[in-house]
Amino acid sequence: MARTIDTIQLGDSASFSKTVTESDVTLFAGISGDFNPAHLDAEYAKNSMFGQRIAHGMLSAGFISNVLGNQLPGQGTIYLGQELKFLKPVFLGDTVTATVTVTERIVEKNRLKLETNVTNQRNEVVITGTATVMPPKA
Amino acid sequence: MARTIDTIQLGDSASFSKTVTESDVTLFAGISGDFNPAHLDAEYAKNSMFGQRIAHGMLSAGFISNVLGNQLPGQGTIYLGQELKFLKPVFLGDTVTATVTVTERIVEKNRLKLETNVTNQRNEVVITGTATVMPPKA
Amino acid sequence: MARTIDTIQLGDSASFSKTVTESDVTLFAGISGDFNPAHLDAEYAKNSMFGQRIAHGMLSAGFISNVLGNQLPGQGTIYLGQELKFLKPVFLGDTVTATVTVTERIVEKNRLKLETNVTNQRNEVVITGTATVMPPKA
Amino acid sequence: MARTIDTIQLGDSASFSKTVTESDVTLFAGISGDFNPAHLDAEYAKNSMFGQRIAHGMLSAGFISNVLGNQLPGQGTIYLGQELKFLKPVFLGDTVTATVTVTERIVEKNRLKLETNVTNQRNEVVITGTATVMPPKA
Repeated sequence: MARTIDTIQLGDSASFSKTVTESDVTLFAGISGDFNPAHLDAEYAKNSMFGQRIAHGMLSAGFISNVLGNQLPGQGTIYLGQELKFLKPVFLGDTVTATVTVTERIVEKNRLKLETNVTNQRNEVVITGTATVMPPKA
Repeated sequence: MARTIDTIQLGDSASFSKTVTESDVTLFAGISGDFNPAHLDAEYAKNSMFGQRIAHGMLSAGFISNVLGNQLPGQGTIYLGQELKFLKPVFLGDTVTATVTVTERIVEKNRLKLETNVTNQRNEVVITGTATVMPPKA
Repeated sequence: MARTIDTIQLGDSASFSKTVTESDVTLFAGISGDFNPAHLDAEYAKNSMFGQRIAHGMLSAGFISNVLGNQLPGQGTIYLGQELKFLKPVFLGDTVTATVTVTERIVEKNRLKLETNVTNQRNEVVITGTATVMPPKA
Repeated sequence: MARTIDTIQLGDSASFSKTVTESDVTLFAGISGDFNPAHLDAEYAKNSMFGQRIAHGMLSAGFISNVLGNQLPGQGTIYLGQELKFLKPVFLGDTVTATVTVTERIVEKNRLKLETNVTNQRNEVVITGTATVMPPKA
């Protein structure tokens, strides 16, 4: 799916949900080289601020880019920028939903700004932020 | 390794380098659900703007968070926020280096701002941005 | 990090900890081709000597080589040999710590011997042994 | 397959072959936490002693344990110990063969010693060593 800017309205929204598994965290560590014990060491994490292992923040941020590149605007989108605020931890086994909502259309430059939120199964916002993208031209 | 704010100076810097492999991109797709053909479909990518498959932007962003959580400030760091500008694509086989440099110390709030750049083997900046973190307290 | 032999003393030590996940065991099976049901078949394992699935011994041995190549002596180290005694099984979900301690310095040949132990979260030694390495020269 | 000690003769031998891929090395790094640039950073490796990335030694050692646990003696074997000498590097794309050969039968203790060699596609021995195992009893 791919949408050009003239077919996109302010307030248009799309989302993606997924349970974050221990396997996801193990693999993300392997890709990123991020072996921080907060993510990978259950014994360390017991005594940490959060009391258990937490997922890498950028792992959940990846769900935002999923929605932008596959749904809204979709294939052919150029990802220009992303602001992220990490508000709460994502624990292994949490189910998170990334939602993007169009907040600004700059038609002459073919750019969109979108509010990007990731929430968990308790409807807590774990990441908030803004994406800037260039939708496909045709 | 972990450094408290009083041991960190403006200009302190750390980095991490890695070749981005086809396997990394395959696994990142599986974790994030981002199966955009720009990342995974070599035939589609041939005819795209970049002429070949590109890595997910958030995959390379993960190297920034690696450096923050493992080197500077290191274990126990709380990641508060990240701004990212995606300037150039990362191709499969590129070797990228994420570098973080302290640009602001807010001692009374125990916060740091760091410039965060990812460069490729041709010394081109592929991602630039700013991180906000809370270093460990002890 | 990398240390030459003249900066390393007898008794110097370094370690790495990680929870061994089901995902790690699945992936290690895929890499090594070791599909022994003791590692991968929960029903078979129930009736085995250990009563549950166990991780591959070489998976935990990999944590030793991690410490040698990344911390002590670190990057540029040449791994010459390793003796391993497998004393106890590592179960999925165990958190293990690999510790290496310098026991012999052979300066004229630029060689070190290190005691290499892997322990679990109950402080039981699961693997013991000796590594022989050549530290980086500069 | 599984063989008890009374069915095993001195000189009995078994082997396993596999091409070591970039993906194997990427995944092994993720499992072991061993992000040494000799394995993962193509630019660093160009200027290293070997001129290119090399596989983790313990990755190839895993092929030995594969043969012991799946072929000779096979399922139900208890792995007691392994001595390894790393003689030559394994490069990404090399096809290696792990071969185990029975060199000693200690029937009263139900133990075997096996010579364990890993060779590459040029018939160079990359790892040599000795395994000690307890074959299944029934």
